[in-house]
Amino acid sequence: MTAGGPSEIEMLIRLLSKLPGLGPRSARRAALHLVRRPEERLAPLAQAMAEVALKARACKICGNIDVTDICAVCADEARDGSILCVVEEVGDLWAMERAGVFRGRYHVLGGVLSALDGVGPDELRVPELIRRASAPEVAEVVLALGSTVDGQTTAHVIADSLADANVRLTALARGLPLGGELGHLDEGTIHAAFGARRGL
Amino acid sequence: MTAGGPSEIEMLIRLLSKLPGLGPRSARRAALHLVRRPEERLAPLAQAMAEVALKARACKICGNIDVTDICAVCADEARDGSILCVVEEVGDLWAMERAGVFRGRYHVLGGVLSALDGVGPDELRVPELIRRASAPEVAEVVLALGSTVDGQTTAHVIADSLADANVRLTALARGLPLGGELGHLDEGTIHAAFGARRGL
Repeated sequence: MTAGGPSEIEMLIRLLSKLPGLGPRSARRAALHLVRRPEERLAPLAQAMAEVALKARACKICGNIDVTDICAVCADEARDGSILCVVEEVGDLWAMERAGVFRGRYHVLGGVLSALDGVGPDELRVPELIRRASAPEVAEVVLALGSTVDGQTTAHVIADSLADANVRLTALARGLPLGGELGHLDEGTIHAAFGARRGL
Repeated sequence: MTAGGPSEIEMLIRLLSKLPGLGPRSARRAALHLVRRPEERLAPLAQAMAEVALKARACKICGNIDVTDICAVCADEARDGSILCVVEEVGDLWAMERAGVFRGRYHVLGGVLSALDGVGPDELRVPELIRRASAPEVAEVVLALGSTVDGQTTAHVIADSLADANVRLTALARGLPLGGELGHLDEGTIHAAFGARRGL
């Protein structure tokens, strides 16, 4: 009762407050929103979570998280097997899919190389990437990694690893983000955007 | 697949995005956080929600939401039955409990009077309040309503309704909130704080 609710509800608030984006206050507000309509709001969410909890797993091919052994992207035969997009995390794959610009296949590294955190190529599904990229149908590997120091280090290491794989290696362009105003952008971005300026 | 995830996971994201404080982006981030550790994160939350969904109900006495017919506050015999605190919503009761300043009993109105929204005294558990306040053991009724126009209208109507109840009627003090700086406060608050100034 210390935080003002009964124990089962307190437990729910405690679990909700661990979600990214929800602190203790907003977790309490969310819990209150749910318990005010248990049948309409809380039960369906509990059900959806239980279902996903039971079924969620990493795709055996690309590392995406889905409710089947082979994820929906890998299972989609309409997708282009000649181009492989390398992303750091599952969330990056989802972001690429939302953008709707890419119709090839993915490879999720599961992070970036980090000497500090002791993350080497073997922790990152790089060996699997080399194997997949060496398949005869793969013509291009797009490195869609973050433009952070670790992301770029990882890109370099992967580029070296794929030197013998006979694929075209590309990376996402650098430049102004959509809606980016120069006055609010860092020098590095402006530098990159200027260097990659294009004719009109 | 439109939003980049598979359907069961999409459903989970959609339900999460309806929580107050979570938009579509943060709902996706929360879902990703959960599905990355289904057993550790998703299953316990699903379980906690299912339990609360099954048990949550409004307390028959005060209107608080709990997992028992009579809520923990009303069931606590150590609490002072001579003082009744009237709040608008269950969330306000929880906030009072967190403050830990009040050891009496509550009455949740379930909203505020609003001519605009067609909310009259009968929608607000005011008749129950009059009955409870008329019990011989009740000596004081504290109106802990918001300092909004509707909240204050409601306070006036309740004060009128309880004129015959032979109880002392009080309301929460107005003044500076903790950490409030005069430069950032509205004139109404400063006006009230000045009017209620106290000797040192």
